[in-house]
Amino acid sequence: MSKYAIGIDYGTLSGRALLTDVSDGRAVASSVFEYPHAVMDKELPCGKALGEDWALQDPRDYLEVIYRTVPDVLRQSGVSPDDVIGVGVDFTACTLLPVKADGTPLCCLDGYADEPNAYVKLWKHHAAQKYADRVNAAAHERREPWIDNYGGKISSEWALPKIWQVLDESPGVYAAADKFIEAADWVVWMLTGSESRSACCAGYKEIYNGATGYPSKDFFISLDPGLENVTDKLGSVISPMGERAGFICPEMARRTGLSEKTAVAVAVIDAHVFVPAAGITEAGKMLAIMGTSTCHMVLGDVEKQIPGICGVVRDGILPGFFGYEAGQPCVGDSFARFIESYVPQSYFDRAKEEGTGIHRYLRSKAERLAPGQSGLLVLDWFNGNRSTLVDADLQGMILGLTLSTTPEEIYRALIEATAFGTRMITDAFNDGGVPITEFYAAGGIAKKDPMMMQIYADVIKMPVRVVDSDQGGALGSAIFGAAAAGSAAGGYDDVFAAEKAMSAPTSKTYLPDEENSRIYDKIYAEYKTLYDYFGRGENDVMKRLKALKSR
Amino acid sequence: MSKYAIGIDYGTLSGRALLTDVSDGRAVASSVFEYPHAVMDKELPCGKALGEDWALQDPRDYLEVIYRTVPDVLRQSGVSPDDVIGVGVDFTACTLLPVKADGTPLCCLDGYADEPNAYVKLWKHHAAQKYADRVNAAAHERREPWIDNYGGKISSEWALPKIWQVLDESPGVYAAADKFIEAADWVVWMLTGSESRSACCAGYKEIYNGATGYPSKDFFISLDPGLENVTDKLGSVISPMGERAGFICPEMARRTGLSEKTAVAVAVIDAHVFVPAAGITEAGKMLAIMGTSTCHMVLGDVEKQIPGICGVVRDGILPGFFGYEAGQPCVGDSFARFIESYVPQSYFDRAKEEGTGIHRYLRSKAERLAPGQSGLLVLDWFNGNRSTLVDADLQGMILGLTLSTTPEEIYRALIEATAFGTRMITDAFNDGGVPITEFYAAGGIAKKDPMMMQIYADVIKMPVRVVDSDQGGALGSAIFGAAAAGSAAGGYDDVFAAEKAMSAPTSKTYLPDEENSRIYDKIYAEYKTLYDYFGRGENDVMKRLKALKSR
Repeated sequence: MSKYAIGIDYGTLSGRALLTDVSDGRAVASSVFEYPHAVMDKELPCGKALGEDWALQDPRDYLEVIYRTVPDVLRQSGVSPDDVIGVGVDFTACTLLPVKADGTPLCCLDGYADEPNAYVKLWKHHAAQKYADRVNAAAHERREPWIDNYGGKISSEWALPKIWQVLDESPGVYAAADKFIEAADWVVWMLTGSESRSACCAGYKEIYNGATGYPSKDFFISLDPGLENVTDKLGSVISPMGERAGFICPEMARRTGLSEKTAVAVAVIDAHVFVPAAGITEAGKMLAIMGTSTCHMVLGDVEKQIPGICGVVRDGILPGFFGYEAGQPCVGDSFARFIESYVPQSYFDRAKEEGTGIHRYLRSKAERLAPGQSGLLVLDWFNGNRSTLVDADLQGMILGLTLSTTPEEIYRALIEATAFGTRMITDAFNDGGVPITEFYAAGGIAKKDPMMMQIYADVIKMPVRVVDSDQGGALGSAIFGAAAAGSAAGGYDDVFAAEKAMSAPTSKTYLPDEENSRIYDKIYAEYKTLYDYFGRGENDVMKRLKALKSR
Repeated sequence: MSKYAIGIDYGTLSGRALLTDVSDGRAVASSVFEYPHAVMDKELPCGKALGEDWALQDPRDYLEVIYRTVPDVLRQSGVSPDDVIGVGVDFTACTLLPVKADGTPLCCLDGYADEPNAYVKLWKHHAAQKYADRVNAAAHERREPWIDNYGGKISSEWALPKIWQVLDESPGVYAAADKFIEAADWVVWMLTGSESRSACCAGYKEIYNGATGYPSKDFFISLDPGLENVTDKLGSVISPMGERAGFICPEMARRTGLSEKTAVAVAVIDAHVFVPAAGITEAGKMLAIMGTSTCHMVLGDVEKQIPGICGVVRDGILPGFFGYEAGQPCVGDSFARFIESYVPQSYFDRAKEEGTGIHRYLRSKAERLAPGQSGLLVLDWFNGNRSTLVDADLQGMILGLTLSTTPEEIYRALIEATAFGTRMITDAFNDGGVPITEFYAAGGIAKKDPMMMQIYADVIKMPVRVVDSDQGGALGSAIFGAAAAGSAAGGYDDVFAAEKAMSAPTSKTYLPDEENSRIYDKIYAEYKTLYDYFGRGENDVMKRLKALKSR
């Protein structure tokens, strides 16, 4: 008798359920539902205007995903609910909402529909920047030890700046909120009927440390006396990844057709869930999820404070390991922007004649270039630098331009720059005592761009193993679901056993070319020099120009 | 009775004759003839292939210009040849040819038609770079004093590298050549029947100093013993600007219909002839000829060695002054290249809808940007840097790029960069003891781009006076022709008097905006820092990338 697990993957605009066979991870059925309210960044449904950089969502949309997609995959597959042994959930983060003690979102209560601070603040809500700046300044002034676990700086996207914004702008909402909770954890709460908190979200987004807990009350008071008891509104019991949060509650069973015996796993962040999907079970194997931006994750046996990473969290990715995260905020985004605005019509015409897309056409020309042939060097900071400089005020640079420089040369140089950026990150880990032994790539670009993968292999001087990850996030959640069910129910004793059976294979491995690596070593040395020169204070021209710009 | 002067202006692809009224400089008739052989950069007419970076011309084309255009302007105007009192000639330089003692070009002799080194080497013949490198190295090693009159470096475009290439590659041609002569001087020779040499060409291109003559025989021997007597093949009598070289010879009178009483002026380089055309008669007034590249000229009362200028030559521009020249090798070229290859079709479509050109459309968008608003900073070294770094191995850079950067922002930043480059030059003159008191702009761009002229005024913090210079080169030559004729013939006693009557008016003056200047001061400070960092050896990344590129 086959058993099944469902992974529910919540993205920025839609949620997807994937029903998989727990024996081998095979996808049996899949269903997607787009959030009716999508991202609210201009106004609330009532018409109330939002400020600049706001990005809200409506939590009812998340429930709608469950109500629509879970029955759909059951129907499509014809699988009996009794054979669905586990459910896992992954979600964008930090995507945070204020709720009452029973889990009811404030925005669903009478009197709050026109209150922006009562809604879900989506990960890319950037209106809390000034609070983040104050958190960082205070942390350094007070020499808070935890700040170095986050590369010396927390992001405006994280929980504390978002919560402080609520307190500061809407103290009534803050007071009425019994809890602030990640949407990931809230969905699990709704599935199981009881609150649980994931170590992944708590560690990477709520400044929670598995050994020492949250920052001290003194610290919060130093920010704002109103924050004195803020941790009471966060999770007190934090569950490591791979644990079971509970079982499907009666109400949810009624709504979805699932059995009350179905286990529900502790929630995971949507990037981190790729690690089990890729079958990674050991320290040192870095996984890079490459899309518009890149998220790098690696497991470590020890806790090290590595400069410029996004965070290190005990049990935050897989149990028993310290989970490290780093990031590049602008990867596919820069290629797309270049093509959209800086490639002449003749290239589009030619691509059309050849019956191919513009990316593929540019690549066909860029592939013929040897490393170093363009003479170009790019700093890939078009959206700031996350790791290892943690500085949103940096910008991109292109050097080596001549009157003969071609669009395909710039296109290739943009790609090379992101590879150099990745090598800065692997170097930081190697230098920081968390040696990187293998490199995996997943996400849209990894599968579609063989030239880029070869460049990465040549630049980082390691084989690049591409994970077949079309359903990456949802598969990882299903693996956690199968582990939460346990072996007695037909699942697995732990997430490692589940991974072994269910994870996605490596579809292709790109080996470094020695001669290319030799040349890229030289260009990387130049990249590094300019990285330090512009990024570490020797010449702060980018910051001064930015200040002039925003006058 | 009106009197007339003809200016003959030789460009890269054609020559133009302009017949002007000497009383006011008014253009009466004009005629253009395109060189039948144009630029030979792939092969000789016999089919013999040329090497890389070669650029040759056929001197018979230059005579054809005279035979066609001079009779044409006489015919068009109906002016009697007796009333044409003077002819002046300006030419690209260093455009150099080997000739026999009677002026016959070697390439016109039997047995030389298939010998590349027997032809005219056009100014942009760049195949003598290695000889220039050796000249510069030897000059510095021997601490030759003259090298500092040329900003510390001579160009591969100049006479000595070109002549040395002939000696080295074709010693038979070198031996057979009684003279090496600038095409400018050769045309005057053909007009008058006797050899004359211009201080302008000799000073700026042949390393001739009005006080000390050519470099020493020892120096030439140190380069190559075969060069021992090279100066015997150059000019021995050098005439200052504004002198008469002679009168139209019988053969030329027969060919053109001109009178043998018509005076012929000493030849001038095509850029330098704009100075009298602009009516400049005093020290300190800088004239910038702006086109694909920019040439800056200024008269000085004293001889100073200013770092990074192209040259200082006694009597080289106007008699009685030291003529200083500096240059930016890439101005309009960079805007054109950007538009050709990096502006999306939507901009062209929109320009078409608005019934305007793409330059004008981009400008209409760029004009709305305030200084500093784009956050961009460009180093305008897309074709190397001439003044003040004298370094062809430098390249362009764009810094401050974000995902929101627009084409019009880059377009404006490219223009601003050329203005900063000009300010580096005016600063060098001011710091070097040749104060710049006024700034004049001429050439295609100066008249057509009011935004650019305003940016220049704001950046250099001086009024920019645009000279109405549609026929600039030819008018300047006509002014020299009228001066060569002398007042007795109905012309003028000297070039200054001729200028006063005939020069072009200032058509528009752009005044600096104080607030804009204040912001540009800040950005210029950043430009300067990066100029030094990348240009003066602190970080030679551009040279290292170029070396990698040419592997």
